Amino acid sequence: MDKNTASYKRMDKTILNAFIEISQQIPFENITVQKIADVAYISRYTFYVHFHDKYEVAERIQDELYREFTQFIQKQIPAIHAATATAEEHWQMMDIAILRFSQKHIGWTQSIWKIHTETIDFSKRIKTFLADNYKSRFPDHENLDLEAMLYANMAMTLTEHYIGKIHTPNMNQTITSSYIYAFLYAIGIHEEHLLKKEYNHFMQLIYPETSLSS
Amino acid sequence: MDKNTASYKRMDKTILNAFIEISQQIPFENITVQKIADVAYISRYTFYVHFHDKYEVAERIQDELYREFTQFIQKQIPAIHAATATAEEHWQMMDIAILRFSQKHIGWTQSIWKIHTETIDFSKRIKTFLADNYKSRFPDHENLDLEAMLYANMAMTLTEHYIGKIHTPNMNQTITSSYIYAFLYAIGIHEEHLLKKEYNHFMQLIYPETSLSS
Repeated sequence: MDKNTASYKRMDKTILNAFIEISQQIPFENITVQKIADVAYISRYTFYVHFHDKYEVAERIQDELYREFTQFIQKQIPAIHAATATAEEHWQMMDIAILRFSQKHIGWTQSIWKIHTETIDFSKRIKTFLADNYKSRFPDHENLDLEAMLYANMAMTLTEHYIGKIHTPNMNQTITSSYIYAFLYAIGIHEEHLLKKEYNHFMQLIYPETSLSS
Repeated sequence: MDKNTASYKRMDKTILNAFIEISQQIPFENITVQKIADVAYISRYTFYVHFHDKYEVAERIQDELYREFTQFIQKQIPAIHAATATAEEHWQMMDIAILRFSQKHIGWTQSIWKIHTETIDFSKRIKTFLADNYKSRFPDHENLDLEAMLYANMAMTLTEHYIGKIHTPNMNQTITSSYIYAFLYAIGIHEEHLLKKEYNHFMQLIYPETSLSS
């Protein structure tokens, strides 16, 4: 069977889309080849010509989504690393880029995000990507592994929080503000007055043009 | 069978310990009741008098560890919430307490940490506990869910990084410093000069008595 014909590829896509449709309705454990075939209006025989099992379908989705993701981010890396970018611009390019990507591919992302098997763990792959990017950015930092994982986990917490939610106009400030409070508490700054002082310090650093209330 | 006799409880413990011993050597999937019985020097019959299956053993370990953990932390909460605690003291009590707890119960922690089933997800339980504690601490914050999850994920990244590792004397500064760098990058502060400036600002805030070299 020639895997490069348009009709073969079209059928691949039909099966992937059927899988995504089902996985938004039922958990991965309950998905069967029969259900995929039903939704795709194909026979189980046709399914098995294209894929070995449902795991292979999910892995393909993960791989394609990951390839799209890295291409999307890598295009922005030179701009992200430019020393002239302000904090807000930098942050927009990185964190907001991940959110935009998840939003753009919401069906695929939601479908793959929930699946955790030995070969499928999309959020772990993205975390590794973000951690590696951090490491290549600050190769001389002393505690590189820990720093990189902390950063990657923060970015992923954000993505998981916003996945499938409507992005509001003041979302950027909401996110920055949450990062700041969580961090200040994590390093032990918990006393009301000092917390507020340090919070304002950072909000002014990131949004120098805005006058801030509380 | 009276579950409150010393001999019944002792056998429970023998089985739990056998499970922990095995789970440090092989993945949960490969653990069988036969293996647990072999290591505990008991018959499979005796095992089934005490537990339904290996899942029940793992759940018991999770529950006991979680109870110990919450008792351990809750004892410290009044001191943690005292406004007079310095940043370093506060942080010692919270993050370092979690690390000390994992270290003290290292066998149990390492054993349960690796298991993820529908009913067993120890790191998720600890995260929920930390997030809830954050929420009760700052009930009036606007983006409480996101802040609390960011904080809980930072603390857990730390624990996962250090689990089973020897704690070094300057670990505290290592951790604080990693938190600061990861956070600064996360909010978009990436330019060398500003990064260093803000880093020093925080290190001086947390360790006011020490003179800091970069």
